[in-house]
Amino acid sequence: MITILRLGHRPARDKRVTTHVALTARAFGADRILVATRDPALERTVREVVRRFGGPFEIETGVAWRSVLRAWPGPKVHLTMYGLPLDELVAAIPREDLLVVVGAEKVPTEVFRLVDWNVAVGSQPHSEVAALAVFLDRLLGGQGLHREFRGRLMIRPSARGKDVVETGRSRDKV
Amino acid sequence: MITILRLGHRPARDKRVTTHVALTARAFGADRILVATRDPALERTVREVVRRFGGPFEIETGVAWRSVLRAWPGPKVHLTMYGLPLDELVAAIPREDLLVVVGAEKVPTEVFRLVDWNVAVGSQPHSEVAALAVFLDRLLGGQGLHREFRGRLMIRPSARGKDVVETGRSRDKV
Repeated sequence: MITILRLGHRPARDKRVTTHVALTARAFGADRILVATRDPALERTVREVVRRFGGPFEIETGVAWRSVLRAWPGPKVHLTMYGLPLDELVAAIPREDLLVVVGAEKVPTEVFRLVDWNVAVGSQPHSEVAALAVFLDRLLGGQGLHREFRGRLMIRPSARGKDVVETGRSRDKV
Repeated sequence: MITILRLGHRPARDKRVTTHVALTARAFGADRILVATRDPALERTVREVVRRFGGPFEIETGVAWRSVLRAWPGPKVHLTMYGLPLDELVAAIPREDLLVVVGAEKVPTEVFRLVDWNVAVGSQPHSEVAALAVFLDRLLGGQGLHREFRGRLMIRPSARGKDVVETGRSRDKV
């Protein structure tokens, strides 16, 4: 079980980026995202994707992030360009009950101390979406992308177009 | 030389996501991004990162994307969840003069025909930022992240904090 903890989300400014973080978490093998700021619109957007394309994947917003981080029973990593290289750390990070902290622009300095590993996916400024995707891809040996989702919609790989199948696994309307 | 072509950018709505696409391109080994919609603010944001953290990396906005795509002399890929799996295609894709097309929500169907490969980084909806990061990471065998940038600022990996060095390589103010 892998949980993402998203800090610093500002609903007006970050809605799209945090949606990308959540969908990337789901597609690359995480099971749940906790978002520090309450945002019902974000929850609806993510749950709608889960309803159509399948789960399990959960979202909860408005969580008390300090309490989550302090009380977390399993290993904790923080993705940051200031951390130690992913290549050096990835083999040591357990997958069980893992919490992955993903910040926005400014992350409180205490976060660096509250986690077990500060992991850098490159030491250049880029994107928490990119960092999360590559972190999960490397952590799960590329297997996160091959997880099966039992949704109402399934995309079949195609060389030149869009091949979307309705599986009939759910009775919800698309 | 790897060039990214970003389609469907709407300055008000997509500024942050397209900034993430551009910075991810730079950090993961691409050399240039072309954005279909003119957006001077986006250009300034990206050039400011290049000025501080180093290059080379170029951005141009307001490009005629159809002409670019039609006239492109090298190989062309389009990242889309509808395409064929990255794992199957990556070994066949040349790195020289490569154009990587990255869309936003809706991509005109002609794009699927104008490229050499439609590549799926997973067949689930997630993020063009995640797709680009993992595509470049796999294409360049993880080496994109280890490229050296000769910028005024350099981040030194650290277990517990922020270690930012001013290299003095540029006379620009930070």
